[in-house]
Amino acid sequence: MCRWLAYSGSPIRLEELLVKRDRSLIDQSLHARQGATTTNGDGFGVGWYDEGGEPRLYRSTHPAWNDRNLRELAAGISSPLFFAHIRASTGTAIQETNTHPFRHGRWLWMHNGLIRGFARMRRELLHAVDDSLFTSIEGTTDSELMFYLALTFGLESDPVAAVEKMVGLVEETGQAHGVDAPLQMTVATTDGQSIWAFRYSSEGASRSLYFSTRMDTLKALHPDLEELGAFSDETRVIVSEPLGDLRGAWNEAPESHVGIVQSGADEIRPFTPTAEALSR
Amino acid sequence: MCRWLAYSGSPIRLEELLVKRDRSLIDQSLHARQGATTTNGDGFGVGWYDEGGEPRLYRSTHPAWNDRNLRELAAGISSPLFFAHIRASTGTAIQETNTHPFRHGRWLWMHNGLIRGFARMRRELLHAVDDSLFTSIEGTTDSELMFYLALTFGLESDPVAAVEKMVGLVEETGQAHGVDAPLQMTVATTDGQSIWAFRYSSEGASRSLYFSTRMDTLKALHPDLEELGAFSDETRVIVSEPLGDLRGAWNEAPESHVGIVQSGADEIRPFTPTAEALSR
Amino acid sequence: MCRWLAYSGSPIRLEELLVKRDRSLIDQSLHARQGATTTNGDGFGVGWYDEGGEPRLYRSTHPAWNDRNLRELAAGISSPLFFAHIRASTGTAIQETNTHPFRHGRWLWMHNGLIRGFARMRRELLHAVDDSLFTSIEGTTDSELMFYLALTFGLESDPVAAVEKMVGLVEETGQAHGVDAPLQMTVATTDGQSIWAFRYSSEGASRSLYFSTRMDTLKALHPDLEELGAFSDETRVIVSEPLGDLRGAWNEAPESHVGIVQSGADEIRPFTPTAEALSR
Amino acid sequence: MCRWLAYSGSPIRLEELLVKRDRSLIDQSLHARQGATTTNGDGFGVGWYDEGGEPRLYRSTHPAWNDRNLRELAAGISSPLFFAHIRASTGTAIQETNTHPFRHGRWLWMHNGLIRGFARMRRELLHAVDDSLFTSIEGTTDSELMFYLALTFGLESDPVAAVEKMVGLVEETGQAHGVDAPLQMTVATTDGQSIWAFRYSSEGASRSLYFSTRMDTLKALHPDLEELGAFSDETRVIVSEPLGDLRGAWNEAPESHVGIVQSGADEIRPFTPTAEALSR
Repeated sequence: MCRWLAYSGSPIRLEELLVKRDRSLIDQSLHARQGATTTNGDGFGVGWYDEGGEPRLYRSTHPAWNDRNLRELAAGISSPLFFAHIRASTGTAIQETNTHPFRHGRWLWMHNGLIRGFARMRRELLHAVDDSLFTSIEGTTDSELMFYLALTFGLESDPVAAVEKMVGLVEETGQAHGVDAPLQMTVATTDGQSIWAFRYSSEGASRSLYFSTRMDTLKALHPDLEELGAFSDETRVIVSEPLGDLRGAWNEAPESHVGIVQSGADEIRPFTPTAEALSR
Repeated sequence: MCRWLAYSGSPIRLEELLVKRDRSLIDQSLHARQGATTTNGDGFGVGWYDEGGEPRLYRSTHPAWNDRNLRELAAGISSPLFFAHIRASTGTAIQETNTHPFRHGRWLWMHNGLIRGFARMRRELLHAVDDSLFTSIEGTTDSELMFYLALTFGLESDPVAAVEKMVGLVEETGQAHGVDAPLQMTVATTDGQSIWAFRYSSEGASRSLYFSTRMDTLKALHPDLEELGAFSDETRVIVSEPLGDLRGAWNEAPESHVGIVQSGADEIRPFTPTAEALSR
Repeated sequence: MCRWLAYSGSPIRLEELLVKRDRSLIDQSLHARQGATTTNGDGFGVGWYDEGGEPRLYRSTHPAWNDRNLRELAAGISSPLFFAHIRASTGTAIQETNTHPFRHGRWLWMHNGLIRGFARMRRELLHAVDDSLFTSIEGTTDSELMFYLALTFGLESDPVAAVEKMVGLVEETGQAHGVDAPLQMTVATTDGQSIWAFRYSSEGASRSLYFSTRMDTLKALHPDLEELGAFSDETRVIVSEPLGDLRGAWNEAPESHVGIVQSGADEIRPFTPTAEALSR
Repeated sequence: MCRWLAYSGSPIRLEELLVKRDRSLIDQSLHARQGATTTNGDGFGVGWYDEGGEPRLYRSTHPAWNDRNLRELAAGISSPLFFAHIRASTGTAIQETNTHPFRHGRWLWMHNGLIRGFARMRRELLHAVDDSLFTSIEGTTDSELMFYLALTFGLESDPVAAVEKMVGLVEETGQAHGVDAPLQMTVATTDGQSIWAFRYSSEGASRSLYFSTRMDTLKALHPDLEELGAFSDETRVIVSEPLGDLRGAWNEAPESHVGIVQSGADEIRPFTPTAEALSR
């Protein structure tokens, strides 16, 4: 189990969300409240778009709470769009290549959850990855493989459809292996412009996911809170569990939905796995 | 806050106590029950006497629970006397030289607790370390400095008196700096033959410490427990918190006492800091 | 490019070969003489059989020359059969799961060299690994994959034939991809009793490999050398490049041969890749 | 022995000097040409001033050549003033707190060289550090201690005089201990505006140090070199050994001098240790 956070808005120093808040992501690495595990100490990663718009990664196998470099970078780097992830391994090795976010081209991907029975299904799922993508797989996690399956299914042109196909494939494969509820996931992915955040599980009881309230609404609700002034109106934060306890700030994502943070109005849509993935 | 374990008895594989037990030390690195912190993920260390009787160390900055090498070594190495320690930093850097056990010559030392106001007192305490020992100090913890002060005060010839002087000095120095209760400690030290385990705090409310019951008594209490057969009668384990829930197995050390595990009858004695340390 | 060492004989402390010699393996991590690279600083690994005969691993991503734990373990552990390897990555990630020796069941495996064009061939080669072995692959190196192919081809029952088939498959696959000389290797593998050491390359110009001279011969040659007394007559060391400059101590392995260190007389045999591997 | 680089000029991505050049600093971590050691694999550090003008650090114990995070950060971070350092330990532990650059307040400091006989002199030198600074010392190197001595002697108000006093003290102390040539150093320090770069050794045979030629001169010399266009005229680079072989680009610093890169005309001045440091 893991915790993650995605930010889109006016450029802010990463530390504003990773370090400074009560119940910041670094706090959650030691003491998560809503997770399947309370400690997320098996490494962490940060992915951000730099001033040239390029995605960059800082990933480490150390616990987030005691990594000094993370605090330095979070203080020294500003970005209009970044992902951060703290890991609690479900069994695969503790190494940077197994640490989220994963990157391919301009895309980032991170995941909380697991594929049940993954060891048995891994070979079949690997087999479904497109040849041109296969050599880019560096680690051994279910999460990275889900990313490459989604890329295979067209993530870069139609993200929602691609993830629906990926989930469809995982569920079909799992069922073929006799796994009851093969997939548990909250996933965030981005091309550097928009963010797609998915909440889904085969059993219909998914890991928690929250979207922050529109910043203008929140400012109207808390006119005295000066710290909100730092955030532009289009700011949106998506998290595994709320940062802090601010009234009205966080909205739980509904089961089996995908939220899209984009220029123009954000959206939330039902998410339905596609069954025919295997027959493509 | 930290957790530690000391073993003396017939040679056993380290994994018997570090890995295999319910509530083993590796379990405690993720979920300690009696500690000031529940997570002890800021590194760990193991010190053991090898077949030639030499003390060896394996220390790492990774969390004990996800370090594969620790499991390999704990399975591959047997020893009649070993120390193990999992660390939760109270502020000093996460680096091997700050990781217990510390070693000097044939002696090992490990500590759970802290010197309050240490940053202010560090210089004075360093000043009291003997010239010939000073260059051996490699890290920046209070724990290592306590070891070198004890060595300065004669640890190698009279361990109890030396620790009493060390504690006396720390308390005097703390009081001179206006610190109310300068010291909180459970400490274990060994020369490879005997183990001295101290439970003391300036405020008289020390961190927990337990000695295992005499193995012959325990075997009589649980005649059906085959696993006890692996331990010789003179086996003794000293721990920050009990491994497992075996009835009658663990005895809390009294406040302000030192237990001595040695050939012949073990001892437990009152522990009284020596006030005149500064005037030596 | 890498350097490695395999030892079989009376139990000795690992440090005798890893640390203490002039041109020890640790020296070679900083300054190899015969390698394709002079620095082998991308991690290292040691595999040894413990007193119960079980294979154990210590692997790290740090350079061997500055890893204190390696020196401690090499001083504290004795074994009658051990492997050691220092790595210079040819491109794959620096992580423990990419560090030699690799282990499966009772077997260890280590490699110096590379599969040329590996990125293109990896998927096909993975595909040839037996289903029951596939999930045990943890890393992304050519070396580990060669091990699992050899296991697939029967390493545990006929090591030489299995490696001949593995090499045959790699060469066929490489040729199908238009790679001129697909394989360069010196490989050592062991079941804890015997050691098989292979020297082979598609181009017939293999990386260096040396076998130590029979210890009785060497003692006769250097009657004054007391340090040789520590080694039993059946001691054999196999290395990428000689440790030290002792006259008569090292014999270069011939091209396309495999040496077998075993109870009874050691052997050296021609090595011929098997072409029909693909059609099995 | 180590290698370092200091940059001041128009903001550039760090990778321009750390990664992309022929003979970049990362190249030098594997293969330095002019150093006392050819491999500088005992960790590295980068210090830069961020867009708010604050100094930030990224330091690691891994070799620079295989650290992926370093390449990511060097690509993602731009700065008008940065330091970078690759380490070859002269004996002290491999840990982040022993890795350059060191930081205090707004100041950065890095060093190539050593204090001979440091183990014997360390205690006395530590004793000379101002009380208010002492608790900020985190590591155990001679280099960091030189920094804190310079701070004690007024680095922040008169850097040249402070370093002259620091060197004076080190030499006096060394001579008192019978050390012939106590100090070997090239040092760079900065407050985020100017850079002071010192070349000095007790024996008058100092480690190499080069200043880049004025950029307008260099552009006039190489009118065809488009890549020079990326650098503003006031750009200055100071290095342990030249990056690349560009004719006219590098000027060796004279023995016992300090160069000052500042707004307005840069300066180069003789450097003379101050003898009366001890009597302050």
